[in-house]
Amino acid sequence: MTPEEFRRVGHELIDRIADYRAGIAERPVMSARKPGETRAMLPKAPPQRPEPFEAVFRDLDAIVMPGLSHWQHPNFFGYFPANSELSSVLGDYLSTGLGALGLSWQASPALTELEEVVADWMRQLVGLSDSWSGVIQDTASTSTLIALICARERANGYGLAKGGLQAARAPLVVYVSAHSHSSVEKAALLAGFGRDNVRLIDFDADYAMRADALEAVVKADIAAGRTPCAVVATTGTTATTALDPVDAIAAVAKRHGLWLHVDAAMAGSAMILPECRWMWRGVEAADSLVFNPHKWLGAAFDCSLYYVRDPRQLTGVMSTTPSYLRSSVDEEVKNLRDWGIPLGRRFRALKLWCLLRAEGVEGLQARLRRDLENAQWLKREVERAPAWKLLAPVPLQTLCLRHEPAGLEGDALDKHTLAWAEAINSSGDAYLTPAILDGRWMVRVSIGALPTERSHIEALWRRLQEEAGAAG
Amino acid sequence: MTPEEFRRVGHELIDRIADYRAGIAERPVMSARKPGETRAMLPKAPPQRPEPFEAVFRDLDAIVMPGLSHWQHPNFFGYFPANSELSSVLGDYLSTGLGALGLSWQASPALTELEEVVADWMRQLVGLSDSWSGVIQDTASTSTLIALICARERANGYGLAKGGLQAARAPLVVYVSAHSHSSVEKAALLAGFGRDNVRLIDFDADYAMRADALEAVVKADIAAGRTPCAVVATTGTTATTALDPVDAIAAVAKRHGLWLHVDAAMAGSAMILPECRWMWRGVEAADSLVFNPHKWLGAAFDCSLYYVRDPRQLTGVMSTTPSYLRSSVDEEVKNLRDWGIPLGRRFRALKLWCLLRAEGVEGLQARLRRDLENAQWLKREVERAPAWKLLAPVPLQTLCLRHEPAGLEGDALDKHTLAWAEAINSSGDAYLTPAILDGRWMVRVSIGALPTERSHIEALWRRLQEEAGAAG
Repeated sequence: MTPEEFRRVGHELIDRIADYRAGIAERPVMSARKPGETRAMLPKAPPQRPEPFEAVFRDLDAIVMPGLSHWQHPNFFGYFPANSELSSVLGDYLSTGLGALGLSWQASPALTELEEVVADWMRQLVGLSDSWSGVIQDTASTSTLIALICARERANGYGLAKGGLQAARAPLVVYVSAHSHSSVEKAALLAGFGRDNVRLIDFDADYAMRADALEAVVKADIAAGRTPCAVVATTGTTATTALDPVDAIAAVAKRHGLWLHVDAAMAGSAMILPECRWMWRGVEAADSLVFNPHKWLGAAFDCSLYYVRDPRQLTGVMSTTPSYLRSSVDEEVKNLRDWGIPLGRRFRALKLWCLLRAEGVEGLQARLRRDLENAQWLKREVERAPAWKLLAPVPLQTLCLRHEPAGLEGDALDKHTLAWAEAINSSGDAYLTPAILDGRWMVRVSIGALPTERSHIEALWRRLQEEAGAAG
Repeated sequence: MTPEEFRRVGHELIDRIADYRAGIAERPVMSARKPGETRAMLPKAPPQRPEPFEAVFRDLDAIVMPGLSHWQHPNFFGYFPANSELSSVLGDYLSTGLGALGLSWQASPALTELEEVVADWMRQLVGLSDSWSGVIQDTASTSTLIALICARERANGYGLAKGGLQAARAPLVVYVSAHSHSSVEKAALLAGFGRDNVRLIDFDADYAMRADALEAVVKADIAAGRTPCAVVATTGTTATTALDPVDAIAAVAKRHGLWLHVDAAMAGSAMILPECRWMWRGVEAADSLVFNPHKWLGAAFDCSLYYVRDPRQLTGVMSTTPSYLRSSVDEEVKNLRDWGIPLGRRFRALKLWCLLRAEGVEGLQARLRRDLENAQWLKREVERAPAWKLLAPVPLQTLCLRHEPAGLEGDALDKHTLAWAEAINSSGDAYLTPAILDGRWMVRVSIGALPTERSHIEALWRRLQEEAGAAG
């Protein structure tokens, strides 16, 4: 495609995205497509000859759009907010259009140094001390895998340069909460620890990890001849946004030489609000932490910030220096390939840079405070409504709730819960994620999509009452 | 940012990218920035208040652009072609603008199904049988890590569900070529094998892995009580685009139960040309393979295709099913989170879909053939030029060459090589990557940037002769 054709089609694309975002509230939130339906509309073989881009736009409208769920919709209350703020979208457009690749510092100096600078801006924004160094990874799943591999190597005397995990003398053990994200156990399994060496630590009434239970399990492992290796504390768990007590967990970690990784994938964005920072009190004692500006904060996916206290513990595990990647300035610069798994990297700093400049710290803070207030409003409504139950504290923007009509319990209650959630989801009016808590289905309301205002929360609350009443 | 502001700024952005691509040949290929120079131009703290996007564009011009190396430049001959074709750029723009996230099939059905379809189109395009299933990963580094973790688990009886690699009875061993990409050894170390259990297999005069040497080392390991686990064959190595004999390696792998992973990160794109497919003859016997449409083919980074013969061996290692990710259709659909490390995923299929439709198979084939012919032209010139030496076969688009004036050898020759390469690189006229081959520096000329025509190769050849002659 020539630059002139790109210009022509690109202008149309910009208008299409602007129109999409401006009119998104008119669409059903979730796609009603059935499995295989989209696939059946697409040709089985690739096109032999070039087609005009108008044909692509036509199929986009006819085939792709009805198969999409609209994460940027004001009535999207599922999973978590995955905001792709339009200023950040433009930053990502710059990155893709410039097509520069960051194999090494030398391969594009500004790509690396802008990433260093915005990672440091974000560090300041969430109130971390200047002893942290940050880098952008794709997702928290990957960041946590990196953390556990680094923990493994530190505990194992950097055995990767020798016999690897296969030569570890005593089994290394990882400690997680039963409410940790599924990616944490997955990371431990991928890193080779084995499920037998992953301990699910008990939680308290608020679904937060119990530091005393952690201590007891660590001691039992030591007594049995195993080597405690790492603990993952979560600030804002997926199901209920529970807050593991980072300070108490850090004390246990320090006593027993554990690597402490803090998973604040979702809640880390809230730390731009000084009034929220108590939620991860103790974080300065961690070895690594991750939070995802591509969630609530508004950076276009993928943008996961991974911070470490001692970069040598990361680069010592991740670095490779074949001759074709060497350059004369290697001693003076950061080569970000040594800070993660992939060698190649996009110019991802641009999307964070554009977001921060276009919105300003104050703009971001105001939006997050709006969402926290909306969550508190809904919390008060639910608390005073008969038959409705709030199942967990609401420190952030997620509510866990259930409609419990008199006489309904057990499997019948589960059936009721899933029925009204499904009725709302399939209506297209809003999207909510059901999840299991204490063995029973409940429904999460995750507030914080970019265009979600109080009026949307009020409308949601009316729909909840309607549907649950009808189903009950 | 409102949709209307996005529209206004977005139109300017499109014009800027179109102008950038149209005028890219006027820029020096590589940035002359010194370490720390870009960082020093940026504010130390994030902006408190929103700024107009014009300020971002101003800083982009003044601070970022002079710090970029231009991978889309016609005189970019470094590393490998990392083409970001403008139709693919538009596909990526759609993805970011729509902001849909593929946590699961249900989270956006079309995102998953279009990825299935274009991965299958690409399978057909490179001539693979329909017994392969594909998925988009970020990079070949990640794809190879996934392959080695899956190999580890298969060899270890899926021990991740039990004691992990820590409980493996005999050390598992991985076999790679001394010319494998650095990411292969890195993957083996991250997967926990340990460097003591990574064998560098000897290569022949063309830098291709020797299958007989592989067989001998495997047998020695078995005799010593170790368990051969996986071998990585490369189609098109990084330094010289050497072609490991996949069929002969596959025979060894089959005899000893090794997982065979084929790394065709760079050369895989060439398999859209039927006349190139002899290069990976035997590939149908592999367990997994990776190639990167984000290199020569022109898909915007990141787009690495990972194919497996038995998806259950992948999903058995990667899948997790917490309640908040379950849906009623899970039995009928692919959940791509179970095909890789990250949970979240962009709508990456769009950039491949747009590339294939806008260029057509024939358009892509014509461009790659142009590049192969350009490489052969330069090869002939080098072969007949006195004092110039071609150091490896040229099956694809990369030449390894050295200027060897009479009387120069050893360290003096290295000095000469690095001097003329540095002179060209720092002139900004072209970019080439020096690398070490057989203990001596040589220079790689990697042909295949989108706008590189014969005239650019001719100009490069004149520059090479000028600079090497001057330095000699």
